Amino acid sequence: MNVLVVGANGQIGKHLVSFLQNKDGLKAKAMIRKPEQSADFEKIGAETVLIDLEGEIEPIAKAAKDVDAIVFTAGSGPHTGKDKTIMVDLDGAVKTIEAAKMAGVKRFVMISSFDTSREAIQSASASFAPYVAAKHYADDWLRRTELDYTIIHPGGLTNEKGTGHVKAAEEVERGQIPREDVASVIVACLENEKTIGKEFQLVSGTTPIKEAIAAL
Amino acid sequence: MNVLVVGANGQIGKHLVSFLQNKDGLKAKAMIRKPEQSADFEKIGAETVLIDLEGEIEPIAKAAKDVDAIVFTAGSGPHTGKDKTIMVDLDGAVKTIEAAKMAGVKRFVMISSFDTSREAIQSASASFAPYVAAKHYADDWLRRTELDYTIIHPGGLTNEKGTGHVKAAEEVERGQIPREDVASVIVACLENEKTIGKEFQLVSGTTPIKEAIAAL
Repeated sequence: MNVLVVGANGQIGKHLVSFLQNKDGLKAKAMIRKPEQSADFEKIGAETVLIDLEGEIEPIAKAAKDVDAIVFTAGSGPHTGKDKTIMVDLDGAVKTIEAAKMAGVKRFVMISSFDTSREAIQSASASFAPYVAAKHYADDWLRRTELDYTIIHPGGLTNEKGTGHVKAAEEVERGQIPREDVASVIVACLENEKTIGKEFQLVSGTTPIKEAIAAL
Repeated sequence: MNVLVVGANGQIGKHLVSFLQNKDGLKAKAMIRKPEQSADFEKIGAETVLIDLEGEIEPIAKAAKDVDAIVFTAGSGPHTGKDKTIMVDLDGAVKTIEAAKMAGVKRFVMISSFDTSREAIQSASASFAPYVAAKHYADDWLRRTELDYTIIHPGGLTNEKGTGHVKAAEEVERGQIPREDVASVIVACLENEKTIGKEFQLVSGTTPIKEAIAAL
């Protein structure tokens, strides 16, 4: 299974590409924005493709032509301007979804935010609300497609080492989770077709990842 | 016909409320954000309702309970932060649309931007693209409803005095139009059911407004 990782140079993306390259039957195609980001991926044998997520849909669709699944884990990040929130977290996600359709790629894994409901938009702080809204509309767009999607709603992301153990369900108590464990969960979703059409909240827990995902 | 004007204190909104108040069979309910904005509307006999478009849907739905149509002409404006673009131009519009559904108000007139197509997002400048994207997704949301909508795509807005003459069609050459004429066109749409389910670009022209709208 060849997986296009959109946002490969992000912190979850880097773990994910590495995991995919180290698993039999899986490989990554890392979608990156800058040429200087390619070296680390080439070192581990991952193909890279240079595309600006703020550009046209067609190059993304072209990059998706030879893959079996797409993972959207790009994010504008907290240090970019607020205008990037709508252009990357919403419009970039929608363009990737449309590219999947154009390329005939059915499998799509979306890394969303912990709670992207209407209530979450309304209760978010003024500075966080635009991000929640962007993710709300991106998730909504994906749900309305015929794609084989999985939407992952991780809790607060940390850079701690992964534990390999999580709690995953439609609703879980708010908590944190290492980015490395989120990447492992993405791999587990790609390897388990039972996650198609599902979405779940995800925090650190006591259940081995494969088992937690199988129980969804 | 009682018309809820969302964004009544904006420049188009002010013209619109005044026109509605001066026409037999039409009246305005001005939705405003700050108490000090109410005096001008009360002076011309228009009802006002104090609602923050960044708040919950329910108050908007409540305000819509006794109206026959809703006009969305709110805009974050060029002087607000970019985060307001997604919260007002997209999320505020979507909440107003959802409020219309909740209140059972079928007629909805949206003041959009001249071109909100995918191509327009891609070709817009970095500073204008977030606004175009927000309007793109708001228009899309409205099109997917069962509401009796009309989407108006005006050209560059000016504060010139209205001429009463416009050019309106699915596609027209880019141009300018006084905000006062846009307000007159909104009234003409509310008075002409043939505009239901239609959207059109609008610039200054040589055809009397009523006639231009009837020819759509």
